[in-house]
Amino acid sequence: MKYVRFRDPAGSVRRGEYRDGTIRFGGSEYDPEDVDVLPPTDPSKVVCIGRNYAEHADERDEDVPDRPLLFLKPPNALAGHGDEIALPEGKEQVEHEAELGVVIGEQCRNVDADDALDVVEGYTCVNDVSNRDDQRVEQNWVRGKAFDGAAPMGPVVATPDEVPDDASITLRVNGETRQDSSTELLIFSIPELIEEITEYMTLEAGDVIATGTPAGVGPLADGDTVEVEIEGVGTLEHDVRAP
Amino acid sequence: MKYVRFRDPAGSVRRGEYRDGTIRFGGSEYDPEDVDVLPPTDPSKVVCIGRNYAEHADERDEDVPDRPLLFLKPPNALAGHGDEIALPEGKEQVEHEAELGVVIGEQCRNVDADDALDVVEGYTCVNDVSNRDDQRVEQNWVRGKAFDGAAPMGPVVATPDEVPDDASITLRVNGETRQDSSTELLIFSIPELIEEITEYMTLEAGDVIATGTPAGVGPLADGDTVEVEIEGVGTLEHDVRAP
Repeated sequence: MKYVRFRDPAGSVRRGEYRDGTIRFGGSEYDPEDVDVLPPTDPSKVVCIGRNYAEHADERDEDVPDRPLLFLKPPNALAGHGDEIALPEGKEQVEHEAELGVVIGEQCRNVDADDALDVVEGYTCVNDVSNRDDQRVEQNWVRGKAFDGAAPMGPVVATPDEVPDDASITLRVNGETRQDSSTELLIFSIPELIEEITEYMTLEAGDVIATGTPAGVGPLADGDTVEVEIEGVGTLEHDVRAP
Repeated sequence: MKYVRFRDPAGSVRRGEYRDGTIRFGGSEYDPEDVDVLPPTDPSKVVCIGRNYAEHADERDEDVPDRPLLFLKPPNALAGHGDEIALPEGKEQVEHEAELGVVIGEQCRNVDADDALDVVEGYTCVNDVSNRDDQRVEQNWVRGKAFDGAAPMGPVVATPDEVPDDASITLRVNGETRQDSSTELLIFSIPELIEEITEYMTLEAGDVIATGTPAGVGPLADGDTVEVEIEGVGTLEHDVRAP
């Protein structure tokens, strides 16, 4: 099953099933082109993982960490499928990072890795948009990672049965492939991440874990169209504007 | 004016005026002892400032930053007046940090410092509870600063007319004064902080900026009672449990 969060023509926020190119809710069917597709969930926080693919750590000249590198994106960072995000003003290097997003299904704390898949509702595509100018010099990556529009995600939440363990993950900018990898290369697995995060923090239903990006990150510029495609989920597409 | 957010005897969340030792809402009066006092606001995020008093930077052997050092606490970190917070398990050094909290009154972005006080609803007391074991070794202070219970705040939101620019700020543990300073010693002023943060992020009504702590931070232990008192706001009190 795949679920889309959207604003219907009457302006109400709904969550419908996405099937055969159509969104279905309450006996009505909608063409995705005719409605405003929203971020697939309304998280209280996005917990992000840095350097969770070895080849990406390598391209950034960083070591693989000995435990998950955590950072945060608050709700202001969210954007949805079909949105145009504005890059932070006056920065020279803002980059894309394709990531598998884990959508949490229930409030949870102190979850053992062995039980962790029970709290996963499904998966989505995330672009962890990164302002390197500030990330390079900040202790905490707030200007670098938590600005408005820094977390486009969607288009759907796909239930776990839809997504293989070795799902392909690709990112294209204006049709050109920039990132092309597989989620089986995650250093810390999804259950390990959930155990580690919930040792410290309660996760809420709808919260998202962005699991880290594979190699191939690169620059974004005014007018770019970005696609993040994950096998079994679908393709998140968004535009970029540099003010 | 001072406002308290509380759960009334029927279980409903209300925001009442606090006056003469009584909470007033909808024609009813409540004794604060008889209701569950909640965090004074329901923020989408708490934006925190590090090293914003020179003497605190000094005691931590850190330089004063050339622009505000930002970090984040998500909603899971919140606790209220009268609550008991659980320290993260197995840590040797968890410390208190008394801070003036700025409560934002309206959704805003790109606010000039000259206009910034227009978006301030009022002020509250915050304890920026800090797990140094992890803060010391993390790139981003997530385990160190964003754990459940890491942001007790309250007991009220006091409107700006109640709070002088040189408000005294003190913190006591079990009645012993540990921190004793004045908000006039902030390095980056509240308007400067709002301008800097909203250059990157939208602030929502109810969001809180924790403006940094003065000198005198120190350890918390099982059974401690912490009081954060700010002139014009009142006294936030909470207990501490070490599991």
